[in-house]
Amino acid sequence: MAQKLGIEVEWVEGDWRHGVDPAVVEDRLKLDGSHSIKAICVVHNETSTGATSRIGEIRQAIDAANHPALYLVDTISSLACVDYRHDEWKVDVTVSGSQKGLMLPPGLGFNAVSEKALEAAKTATSNVSYWSWQDMIENNKNGVFPYTPATNLLYGLKEALRLLHTEGLDNVYARHARLAEATRIAVEAWGLENLCLVPEEFSNSLTAVVMPDGHDADALRNVILVNFDMSLGTGLGKVKGKIFRIGHLGDFNELMLTGTLSGVEMGLEIAGVPFNKGGINAAMDFLAQN
Amino acid sequence: MAQKLGIEVEWVEGDWRHGVDPAVVEDRLKLDGSHSIKAICVVHNETSTGATSRIGEIRQAIDAANHPALYLVDTISSLACVDYRHDEWKVDVTVSGSQKGLMLPPGLGFNAVSEKALEAAKTATSNVSYWSWQDMIENNKNGVFPYTPATNLLYGLKEALRLLHTEGLDNVYARHARLAEATRIAVEAWGLENLCLVPEEFSNSLTAVVMPDGHDADALRNVILVNFDMSLGTGLGKVKGKIFRIGHLGDFNELMLTGTLSGVEMGLEIAGVPFNKGGINAAMDFLAQN
Amino acid sequence: MAQKLGIEVEWVEGDWRHGVDPAVVEDRLKLDGSHSIKAICVVHNETSTGATSRIGEIRQAIDAANHPALYLVDTISSLACVDYRHDEWKVDVTVSGSQKGLMLPPGLGFNAVSEKALEAAKTATSNVSYWSWQDMIENNKNGVFPYTPATNLLYGLKEALRLLHTEGLDNVYARHARLAEATRIAVEAWGLENLCLVPEEFSNSLTAVVMPDGHDADALRNVILVNFDMSLGTGLGKVKGKIFRIGHLGDFNELMLTGTLSGVEMGLEIAGVPFNKGGINAAMDFLAQN
Amino acid sequence: MAQKLGIEVEWVEGDWRHGVDPAVVEDRLKLDGSHSIKAICVVHNETSTGATSRIGEIRQAIDAANHPALYLVDTISSLACVDYRHDEWKVDVTVSGSQKGLMLPPGLGFNAVSEKALEAAKTATSNVSYWSWQDMIENNKNGVFPYTPATNLLYGLKEALRLLHTEGLDNVYARHARLAEATRIAVEAWGLENLCLVPEEFSNSLTAVVMPDGHDADALRNVILVNFDMSLGTGLGKVKGKIFRIGHLGDFNELMLTGTLSGVEMGLEIAGVPFNKGGINAAMDFLAQN
Repeated sequence: MAQKLGIEVEWVEGDWRHGVDPAVVEDRLKLDGSHSIKAICVVHNETSTGATSRIGEIRQAIDAANHPALYLVDTISSLACVDYRHDEWKVDVTVSGSQKGLMLPPGLGFNAVSEKALEAAKTATSNVSYWSWQDMIENNKNGVFPYTPATNLLYGLKEALRLLHTEGLDNVYARHARLAEATRIAVEAWGLENLCLVPEEFSNSLTAVVMPDGHDADALRNVILVNFDMSLGTGLGKVKGKIFRIGHLGDFNELMLTGTLSGVEMGLEIAGVPFNKGGINAAMDFLAQN
Repeated sequence: MAQKLGIEVEWVEGDWRHGVDPAVVEDRLKLDGSHSIKAICVVHNETSTGATSRIGEIRQAIDAANHPALYLVDTISSLACVDYRHDEWKVDVTVSGSQKGLMLPPGLGFNAVSEKALEAAKTATSNVSYWSWQDMIENNKNGVFPYTPATNLLYGLKEALRLLHTEGLDNVYARHARLAEATRIAVEAWGLENLCLVPEEFSNSLTAVVMPDGHDADALRNVILVNFDMSLGTGLGKVKGKIFRIGHLGDFNELMLTGTLSGVEMGLEIAGVPFNKGGINAAMDFLAQN
Repeated sequence: MAQKLGIEVEWVEGDWRHGVDPAVVEDRLKLDGSHSIKAICVVHNETSTGATSRIGEIRQAIDAANHPALYLVDTISSLACVDYRHDEWKVDVTVSGSQKGLMLPPGLGFNAVSEKALEAAKTATSNVSYWSWQDMIENNKNGVFPYTPATNLLYGLKEALRLLHTEGLDNVYARHARLAEATRIAVEAWGLENLCLVPEEFSNSLTAVVMPDGHDADALRNVILVNFDMSLGTGLGKVKGKIFRIGHLGDFNELMLTGTLSGVEMGLEIAGVPFNKGGINAAMDFLAQN
Repeated sequence: MAQKLGIEVEWVEGDWRHGVDPAVVEDRLKLDGSHSIKAICVVHNETSTGATSRIGEIRQAIDAANHPALYLVDTISSLACVDYRHDEWKVDVTVSGSQKGLMLPPGLGFNAVSEKALEAAKTATSNVSYWSWQDMIENNKNGVFPYTPATNLLYGLKEALRLLHTEGLDNVYARHARLAEATRIAVEAWGLENLCLVPEEFSNSLTAVVMPDGHDADALRNVILVNFDMSLGTGLGKVKGKIFRIGHLGDFNELMLTGTLSGVEMGLEIAGVPFNKGGINAAMDFLAQN
C-alpha cells in the first residue's frame, strides 16, 4: 500500500501467471460497502508476462458487486492487437500508446475518457497538471493542442490507422491470434512452458517463455543477439533471468515469425539449453494449414 | 550472331547450368589468329541462373591464348557479395549497379576502366554518347558530373560503403557464402535440384531451384506471394516456369534467410509440390554450427 | 498563489515586456529569512514574449541574498540557440526539450541536475513518479532506460549534436544573434515595436512584434498563412491578438530569414496594417555587411 | 553536322537568346522536297538559357511545310511547369525526366510516343537497345518492367502526381508563371538583362541573368554559395561566366523565391557587381498584388 499525491493505492497481488481474476475483483468490491475505492486499474495485456486480462468479465464483476468505482484500463500493448471494447465494457478511462499495435515510435499517449470519469476529475483533489484533461479538451474544440504537439507522429498515426482499416480490424486481430498460436505451438514443441497458465488469457501480443531450471534467460538472449542480431524481451522484476519474451505484435507476419522462432530454436541449441527441436516445424505446420 | 551499331556480336551458347567455361574461351580465341575479336564479355554472377563464372580462370585462358581482346565483366549481382578483383584479374571494363550488393535503390551504374580500354575507346567507331566515358572523366577532374547526378544515391553510396567497410569485405563475402551454403543445404534436403551444376560456380548471391517435372514454378511463387507476402524471383527466358530463385544478397542475415526458407517450405507444401520436409532444419543446423 | 501537490507556488508577476529582474529576485529572497522558499524557477528564454532572462545575473542575486533556494531553469527555447552555462551559473535543475534548438521533433526532455538538487529530491514530499530521477539514474548506469525509450529521437539527437559541434557552438550562437539582430532591424524599419523592451534581454530565438493599435495580429497571421503558406506564432494569453512572433531558431539561415521577413512585409501590406516598407532591405543591408 | 550511329544530324544554330524560330523550321523543311529529314528535335524549355520554344507554333510550321518528319520534343525542364500538349500539338515523341517539375530525384525517364513514331521505329536502322521501346511495351501489358525498375521513384511519382493534381495543373502553371514574372521584375529592377530576348519565350522554369561586362558570373555564384549557402546554376558552354541561372520550378513558392532573390541581391552587393538595389522590393510588390 502506497501513498502518493494523497492517493491511497492498494495492490491486489497476483502470481504473474494469470490475468486479473474477476472473482477477486468482485469479492474485494463487495467488502467495500462504504465505496471508499474510487477506481479499479487493470492492465489489459501485461507486457511483462504475456497474460491478457478479461476486461469484459471484470466489468461484469464490478457490476455484480454493484460498486460505483471507476474502471481504468491500460491497453498499451493490446490496442490494435487484441479485440477491445471501451464503450461496450463501460471502461471509464482507457490509456494507450503509439509504440505497440499502432506501429509507431513512442511519443503519443491516448486517453479515452467516459463522462463519468470527466465528472469525477472535476472534484479530484490530486490534481496534477500532467493528468489534467481540461486543457486538451478545451483546445481540441478548435482543433489545436494545448502544448507542443508531436506533429510527425500525428501524421504517422493517420497512416497507421489507414493501414489498420485497410486490413480490417477483425483481420488484424485474427492475424495476431494466428501468429500467437503458432508461437505457443512452437514453445510447446520445444518442451518449454508458457509463463501464462490460463489458455483464455494467453496474450496475442507476446509470449513469455519459462526457461528450464538452472538456465539463465538473459544468457540465452545474449547468445541470440550476438549470433542472430535479434533482441528478445528480458524478464522483468521477479522473473528476471527466468523468462524471455517473444513479441509478435504490430507490423508482423508469418515469415517474420518463422524467422524469429528459428532464431530462438538455433539459440537454444547454441546456448546448450535442454529442449526438443522442431518448434519451428510445428509452427510451420500450423501456419501452412491456417 | 547479331549486328548492331556496326558491332558484330558472337554469342557462345551455354546450357544455363554452368558458368562460362575457360577452356571454351581459350579455344575460341586461339582460332582467332587475326585478332578480329575485340572484346570478351562475361557476366560474373548470372542473376538468371545462379551461376558464378570464374573470372580469374577466364583471364588465364585469355592469356594462354595470347590474345589481345579486351576483357569486359558484368558484376551487377556479384559486387560486394562475392570476391572480385578487377586489377588482379586484369579486367578492362567492369560494370556494376547500385541495387544489389551495394544495398541501394537502382539508379547508379559503375564502370571500372583500364588504360587499355580507354585507349581502345579513342578509336572505337561505334561511338554512342551513352557509352562515352570522356565527358565523365573530364568533369570528374573538377569533382563535377557532366549530367544531372543522382545526388541522393551518392549519399546512399557513401553510407553503403561505410557499412561494408565497417563489417569488412572479407566478412561480407563470408556472410554471403554462409547464407548461400545454408540455402543450398535446404534445397538439397527438400530433394530439389540447384539449377547450377558446378559446385565451384554456385552463386553466393542467389540460388535458382529447379521445380519437379510437371510443377510450375510460377504457380508456387504465387502461392508464396499470396500466403506469405514474399516475392521470389521468376525463371527468365527458357527456364520460365521451371525454376524459382531465392535471393540471399545484400543487407541479409541468418534470420532473414530462415524466414525466407520457411516461406518456401510452407509454400511447397501448400502448392502440393512433392518434396521432403526439413530443409529449414538442415539450414538451421548448418547455421547454428557456423 | 496556487497549491498543488502540497507545493505552495508564488508567482512574481512581470509585465511580459521584460525578463526576470535580478533585483526583484534578490529583494524577495532577502525577505525570506526563514528560508521557506525552496526553489526559484526561471524561464531562460520566454517563448511567448521573446525575452531572455539573465540567468547568470539572477544567480548573483541569489548569492547576494545568501539564500539556499534551489535554482531551476527552463531552457526549452534557448538551449543550443543562446549561450547557457548550467555549471558556471550554479543552476540546480535545467530542463530542456528536443524540439527547438536541437532541431528534432518533440519527444525528448532533458534534465541537468546538481548534487544539491538530487539531495533535495531525496526528502521531497511531493514525490510524483513523473518527476522522479531515481529510476533513470539507476538504469542509466547500465546504459538502459527505465521505460520505453524514444530510440528514433536518440539517433536524431546524436546527429543533431554532431551538426552543432561541426558548426561549433560559438558559431551557432553567433548565427542566432546575427539573424535575430537582422529581424529586430526589420521590425524597427517597419516602424513596429518589439514586445521586449530591454535590449540585453532581446531573444535570439524569436522576436515578438507588437501590432499597431486597432489591428489584429491573428488576422495578419492568417493573411500570411493563406497567401504565403507561412505560419507565424500567435500571441498567447493576455497578448493574444496583440502580437505575432517570428521564430529564428534552430536549423535556420540568412535566406530562410529574408524569405520570412519578406512574407511578413508583404503580409503587412496585404492586411492593410500601417507600416513603413523596407524592413527587408534594412535586414539585408545588415546581413550583407555581417 | 555529325554522323553517329548512321544518323546524320543537322544542327540549326541559334544565338542562345531566342527559342526555336518556327519560320526557320518551315523554311528548312520546305527546302527538303525529298523528305530526307526524318525528324525535328526541339527542346521545349532550354535549361541552359531560359528560353521556352513555341512547340505549338513549330507544329504549325511543320504542317505548313507539309513535311512528314517526326516531331520530337524534350520537356525535361518544362513538364509540370509550363503548359504542354503532346496530343494537341501532334508531337511524335516527348521525352522528360523525374527531377524537375515532377519534384523527384533523377532516375526516371518518360517517353510519350505516337503511333507514327512507333511505326517508324519498326524500320529504323539505328537500333540501339537503349532506345528501343519494344521491351517496355511488351512487358507493360502485364504490368511489369523489362529491367530492374526504380520502384522507390515510382512510389514517389505516384505521390508527386497526387500533389500536382490536388493543386490542379492550371494552378501549377499559374504559380510558375507568377513566380517567373516576379523574378524577371527583380532582374529588370536590378538593371540586369534576361538572356532570353523574346517575352513570349521567357521561361517559367528558370531565368538566366546576364552579368555586366567585366564581371564573372561564377565569382558571384561563389560569393552567394559561401555567404548564403545557395547554389545558383552556372552558365554552360559559350555563356560560361557570363550568366547565372535562377531556378523557380517544381516545389517552389513565394517565400522561397523572395529568399532566393534576396540572396542574389545581397550577393550582387557583396561581390561588387554594379546594379540597382530594390529588385526584391519590385518582386514583392508584384507578388503582394498577385
